Amino acid sequence: LESNDHPKLGTYTNSMRPYDRGMVFEELSDLKQKRAFVESLEISSLAELLRYLSPEEQAIAISFIDQAILGKVLDEMPNDDLAEMLDVLQQDQAAALVNVMSKEEAQIVQDIMTYPAESAGRLMTNRHVWIYPDMTVHESIEKLREYAKVFDTIHYLYVVNEEHKILGAASFRDLLLADAADSIEKIMSKNPITVQSFVDQEEVARLIEQYDLIAMPVVNEANKLLGIITVDDVIDVLIQEATEDIERLSGSGKEITFKTKPVVAFAKRLPWLVLLLLIGLVSGTIISRFEETLATVVALAFFMPMIAGMTGNTGTQSLAVVVRGLTTNRIDKKTVSKLIIRESLVGVMIGVSCGILIAFIAFFWQGSITLGFIVGLSLLITLVFGTLAGTIIPLILHKFNVDPAIASGPLITTLNDILSLLIYFGIATSLIARFPL
Amino acid sequence: LESNDHPKLGTYTNSMRPYDRGMVFEELSDLKQKRAFVESLEISSLAELLRYLSPEEQAIAISFIDQAILGKVLDEMPNDDLAEMLDVLQQDQAAALVNVMSKEEAQIVQDIMTYPAESAGRLMTNRHVWIYPDMTVHESIEKLREYAKVFDTIHYLYVVNEEHKILGAASFRDLLLADAADSIEKIMSKNPITVQSFVDQEEVARLIEQYDLIAMPVVNEANKLLGIITVDDVIDVLIQEATEDIERLSGSGKEITFKTKPVVAFAKRLPWLVLLLLIGLVSGTIISRFEETLATVVALAFFMPMIAGMTGNTGTQSLAVVVRGLTTNRIDKKTVSKLIIRESLVGVMIGVSCGILIAFIAFFWQGSITLGFIVGLSLLITLVFGTLAGTIIPLILHKFNVDPAIASGPLITTLNDILSLLIYFGIATSLIARFPL
Repeated sequence: LESNDHPKLGTYTNSMRPYDRGMVFEELSDLKQKRAFVESLEISSLAELLRYLSPEEQAIAISFIDQAILGKVLDEMPNDDLAEMLDVLQQDQAAALVNVMSKEEAQIVQDIMTYPAESAGRLMTNRHVWIYPDMTVHESIEKLREYAKVFDTIHYLYVVNEEHKILGAASFRDLLLADAADSIEKIMSKNPITVQSFVDQEEVARLIEQYDLIAMPVVNEANKLLGIITVDDVIDVLIQEATEDIERLSGSGKEITFKTKPVVAFAKRLPWLVLLLLIGLVSGTIISRFEETLATVVALAFFMPMIAGMTGNTGTQSLAVVVRGLTTNRIDKKTVSKLIIRESLVGVMIGVSCGILIAFIAFFWQGSITLGFIVGLSLLITLVFGTLAGTIIPLILHKFNVDPAIASGPLITTLNDILSLLIYFGIATSLIARFPL
Repeated sequence: LESNDHPKLGTYTNSMRPYDRGMVFEELSDLKQKRAFVESLEISSLAELLRYLSPEEQAIAISFIDQAILGKVLDEMPNDDLAEMLDVLQQDQAAALVNVMSKEEAQIVQDIMTYPAESAGRLMTNRHVWIYPDMTVHESIEKLREYAKVFDTIHYLYVVNEEHKILGAASFRDLLLADAADSIEKIMSKNPITVQSFVDQEEVARLIEQYDLIAMPVVNEANKLLGIITVDDVIDVLIQEATEDIERLSGSGKEITFKTKPVVAFAKRLPWLVLLLLIGLVSGTIISRFEETLATVVALAFFMPMIAGMTGNTGTQSLAVVVRGLTTNRIDKKTVSKLIIRESLVGVMIGVSCGILIAFIAFFWQGSITLGFIVGLSLLITLVFGTLAGTIIPLILHKFNVDPAIASGPLITTLNDILSLLIYFGIATSLIARFPL
């Protein structure tokens, strides 16, 4: 790159593995080098490069691609990756790119972008080869050879009828093991597992995982083949969904990675924290209502963080079980009611054990039966409610399709804080009035 | 199942998809039905069934398999799944199974079990076909046909030399597109991405994800081919690792799913909660040390839960970023120091913003400049320390290979609770002495 010796550079950069090429490009520190890198690449290498870059880096790379070949580069990108790229670009930039693409490709990408975000339709590629049941194995292999240069990630040929409805699939393995003269109908596997275009990507990932597939056909309501989803896209979905779950549980702000700049990370994290700060003031207000009780028995304050913390902890535990379960289970009434009953039982068991334990500790530490009773009973009740809040709130949000980011761990913790203080001071005030310490 | 009509039942149960067969077996509510189900299955269906069952259900199914065919069923299972099954069984049960297996299979499985848990060696299967570079495409396909019945999840043939060192790979696609007389050397892809047997499964998943692979050869130090890892195993690894991350962040106890029984879930969650309860008492002890300060200015208690909660929240945010980042990034000194600097900056920015905000709120609410200053300064300092604790503690644990479950969200939250109370009451006590409210 230093010597700007393009021919030699091109031999090297065009032979890199796509992922490595993307990493090298992102690591280059100055724009001159990035430009030289881009200019050394052939059309197919450029198309691969764009697939492996973050949105910001894509914009940089595109700006260095010669306008004369940009359309060809875009045409060569798999249409799902192309749609994803256009989706995050600003409208005028995306429109400019669509303009240089071939009409056919532009139409396909625009079609894909009509599917809802995170649906099967968005993940699928139309770059697959279909065959008919009356073709022979030999004819099918000939058709595959014809298209093989363009379509590089296929492992199956899909078998359709004249209406393009899916009938079966023939894996490359089936083709290799069959006789050249066999008919496809004879060797294909019938009733392949398919998915409809509007289905959520999590459901697609679940099916691919459960049935150990490496590709899955996407169909419309009439069972017509629209495209295929490959396992590498599903792996990305799994990583993305797990990351979303974790962001949700920790309220850590979307898409903060090791590479995120400090100011960006700050801006993403702040809104949650300010909201939680304001909600946290509600606890303050509650305590101020009980100022008199607290002033009488300052020792009540000693157990305040423990009770609030424990309620938060048990709520977070339940929340984690629910959030993770929602991604790997089908949710129906039976599952939900079983889960709520289970968590209620767990809450009671946890509440009783921890309540008895802390009652004894409080009694021996502060030498007051009343205080021991207040702390123990409060912890018992708050743990039951905390466990249920951590279970039910995310289920309700899921039911009403509310963005589940709202049910984040910190929110459950903060709500449980408030709940626990109300219960603790409520019990303390009424008991102290009757049984002074 | 009701009518116990075995021949008809067998036609149905043997033709099910493996995952569905496993689900149906697990759903059957009585043991008699499970026995009838197992007895209706052929050897290959039984081998598949065992792969898709949870450890408890595997034990039930095994007890119903005729001793005369049990060895054959085990021989037919992929050796990675077999090793996993034996690993969770009790020693005498596992030994009994190894006894009925063929000597060859038993040796292979015992070899696999010598690799460390969660390593590439544990994930690999030896059921793949190797070929030599001087074979023709035609000869390779013949060899594949010979072994195809036994090995059902292969997508590549791996090319080795006479010392079994890996030279390249030929995909089924390469074979289909080549001429029958071509030599393998000519069509194979050279320098395939390989992984050594002791490498952690997360690293394997990362490579498969980055390079969009569907299988990966495992080699020893001398580059000899030991086995292959297929993408379906990697998908299971990704789900398992994400679940572990979430369990870690929420301290929710290992492997609690929607199906876990109440008592089991209780037993898994309780130890953490009791530990956190005891740690929470430390906060109590701290507050009791500052009893005098608190009795003088009861209003300090109003802000206690908010300060402790916010410190916990920012710590959990940082923890989530680190935990997730550890699974998707290579960790070196440069990455770590950049991350710590980034999080320090974020901590300061968050601390200053939230500190100023709460200082004004406290001042207007309680009408005291001193109180406003105490609360604002405390929040600023605790947020900086809380952010750093959430970043550095998991990094240290990772560095020393300590089971990272220890750095769980609740633990960071509880430690941050203690830290924040010390800072808050320390500042309050020294400031109130000089500037009484």
